Amino acid sequence: MTQSASRRKHIVVVGAGFGGVAFCQAFPEGLADITLVDRNNYHLFQPLLYQVATADLSPSDIAEPIRTIFDRRRDITVLMDEVTGIDFQSRIITMRRRTLQYDYLVLAIGARTGYFGNDDWARYAGGLKGIEDALNIRNRVLSAFEEAENCPDPSQVKCLTTFVVVGGGPTGVELAGALGELTRRVLRRDFKNIDTSQARVFLIQSAPRLLPPYHPALSEYARQKLVQLGVDVRVSSRVVRVGPHQIELDNGKIIEAANIIWCAGVEGHPLARKLGLPTDRTGRIQVEPDLRVPGHPEIFAIGDIAALTDAKGVVVPGVAPAALQMGRYAARVLAAELRGRPKPPPFVYFDKGSMATIGRAAAVLEVGKLRMTGFLAWIGWLIVHLAMLVGFNNKVSVLTEWIFRYITYRQGARIITTPRTDELLQETP
Amino acid sequence: MTQSASRRKHIVVVGAGFGGVAFCQAFPEGLADITLVDRNNYHLFQPLLYQVATADLSPSDIAEPIRTIFDRRRDITVLMDEVTGIDFQSRIITMRRRTLQYDYLVLAIGARTGYFGNDDWARYAGGLKGIEDALNIRNRVLSAFEEAENCPDPSQVKCLTTFVVVGGGPTGVELAGALGELTRRVLRRDFKNIDTSQARVFLIQSAPRLLPPYHPALSEYARQKLVQLGVDVRVSSRVVRVGPHQIELDNGKIIEAANIIWCAGVEGHPLARKLGLPTDRTGRIQVEPDLRVPGHPEIFAIGDIAALTDAKGVVVPGVAPAALQMGRYAARVLAAELRGRPKPPPFVYFDKGSMATIGRAAAVLEVGKLRMTGFLAWIGWLIVHLAMLVGFNNKVSVLTEWIFRYITYRQGARIITTPRTDELLQETP
Repeated sequence: MTQSASRRKHIVVVGAGFGGVAFCQAFPEGLADITLVDRNNYHLFQPLLYQVATADLSPSDIAEPIRTIFDRRRDITVLMDEVTGIDFQSRIITMRRRTLQYDYLVLAIGARTGYFGNDDWARYAGGLKGIEDALNIRNRVLSAFEEAENCPDPSQVKCLTTFVVVGGGPTGVELAGALGELTRRVLRRDFKNIDTSQARVFLIQSAPRLLPPYHPALSEYARQKLVQLGVDVRVSSRVVRVGPHQIELDNGKIIEAANIIWCAGVEGHPLARKLGLPTDRTGRIQVEPDLRVPGHPEIFAIGDIAALTDAKGVVVPGVAPAALQMGRYAARVLAAELRGRPKPPPFVYFDKGSMATIGRAAAVLEVGKLRMTGFLAWIGWLIVHLAMLVGFNNKVSVLTEWIFRYITYRQGARIITTPRTDELLQETP
Repeated sequence: MTQSASRRKHIVVVGAGFGGVAFCQAFPEGLADITLVDRNNYHLFQPLLYQVATADLSPSDIAEPIRTIFDRRRDITVLMDEVTGIDFQSRIITMRRRTLQYDYLVLAIGARTGYFGNDDWARYAGGLKGIEDALNIRNRVLSAFEEAENCPDPSQVKCLTTFVVVGGGPTGVELAGALGELTRRVLRRDFKNIDTSQARVFLIQSAPRLLPPYHPALSEYARQKLVQLGVDVRVSSRVVRVGPHQIELDNGKIIEAANIIWCAGVEGHPLARKLGLPTDRTGRIQVEPDLRVPGHPEIFAIGDIAALTDAKGVVVPGVAPAALQMGRYAARVLAAELRGRPKPPPFVYFDKGSMATIGRAAAVLEVGKLRMTGFLAWIGWLIVHLAMLVGFNNKVSVLTEWIFRYITYRQGARIITTPRTDELLQETP
């Protein structure tokens, strides 16, 4: 390698989600110096985040310290910091605490909850993207029942025990199902004055059916299972207004609900637009077939922040497997370039299939032409999610919790904690 | 029973710590209506709280929803609320959200971290009494290492990686030992620029030896084990000043430390003084031999909030077993009164012994004249703490974590999370 003779190139990877971590894991050791930056000290297994929101799992069950993932890689430096700006000319990235010079930049900054231009709705209808979101939802849901249990006013009780999930994609379906179980089965024994099975869970979907990318038969199965769990599923319904403890649909119906959770849309991390990069309508960076940012051959964008129709004409979806594949592909492209080898063919997304769980022992699964529902699909869902979870310790914790929950109908993390924000935490000595 | 003929008496129990929960569990079912009030929705197993602070355990491992503990008791109503005042004349208790009339009141409001009159030190040296405290310490400790790893200034690195634990009682000893292990062993592999085993952990004790109530041989064993874990133990040292990232001892020594944790003192919950009840110097309520509050035969004070020298002349210590015993005793006294039976003899504290763990596989244990140190004492500590932990699920989680930690030297909860405080959480619809 001629590389080792000259100064090694410095690759800065921003974001330690599925894309950023996959890039680092796939990039050949010793070929360059990599700095992986994230504002958290952990990699989050987002597919199970809704279970933190519904008190099934603890945050640490689905989060693994980034340093631990790369503790054997001497060429990878992990930084906990937040990017504030990038000077593309001098190739300098500015963060809250320091600046870094880069030769190559991998933007894996992901997506955030999107409100289709109604950002003021965020105040009343929080999303579910990070651990903080999940803990806020958990605290809200459990607090609402605590309040309702001792509330003398029936209309307030009704409002407190009404949950609205907006968005009929996998996250919305899984969350609504979990809330249905929580209210119908788990919390039931805990409360004496209210009947938690009278709690109302709405699932609002703008499209004519749930889980639109799936086969219609699976959508229908999911809808039926949710209805069995007591969820009031409203398809072809659009939200036109969100206020404090209130949501209005396009058919004029107003639902009074203390708990509104927004799973309807995502948009690219605002940093992409702030940097002036070419973004689509939802703020995602439009990338070239090799995942490079147009006009910036030294910058790659991967994962949920990247907008791409692949070489076979498939619109790459914003899901974990796509981010993993993009991370590995970008590593291959950049490694080839640094080694002076031929450029790999353009990125092609390989659809490994989709799955979503709907409460206890029910799931839908679609792999190519294979479709499955029910208990076996649920077992498949369990196995795939356990296998993908980073960290052996986490796998065991989550499996233990799931077994308990299955046997006992009890959630393991039903505690309300709101740590004070510690101002000193932000100070440097 | 004549009781069931007339209106049942209403007992309000404030605080769901060891004392309050023990009272409710011991009080005969159906003899009265009980309302148990706590500002949290969970009972906290405080003896393991330091392991949440050092990222060994998750909050939900050592917290059990209060409702779940009493889900089979139809005579017990659980309320999540915070007491703000009591009108002793009309027997009305005021809380943030509602008021309650009581016939009997059981104050089990516990203790908080005490600074011997230097309350301004709290800003720089937080205590370890609740889950919020523990999460703050965890976030601070992990953030300090994240900062140090990428800090160019050696003196800042030194300050960031210096930990001062003030107080050589069981909590201070256990926390200092756990910090010694965390820095010497657990985090070591995660960091590349800093050697975490160079982190300094100080344990400051004002008395001439650690664990003063124990036999001197055990104090000496604890000191030696801590020194082996790299802890700098300073006995006969008094703190005279605490500032931002700085602590000064009475011998003039100034330690620059970004992490100062106060385990030196406790004082009664401020509510006792605010209510104008007869308190001692540390704000605890001075109770009569039957745990009633002087001048208020309808009010009991139990657990850490009660100051009592028992019928045998023993000063009852502020520990979990004493709170449990007081809770059961008060239940017996009140049940006898309601049933018109003779009054039980005055409260006598039964000392079941004391134990403290010092890092991995080392502990001290003292039961009467039996003294034990080392591995067997540690196994004893494990068994007693697992047995006392409320909730079967929690027992299994904690045991699993401990086994992992013992085998892998890895902490399971090394993630930094600071949930936003959710203003809406406090609103009622």
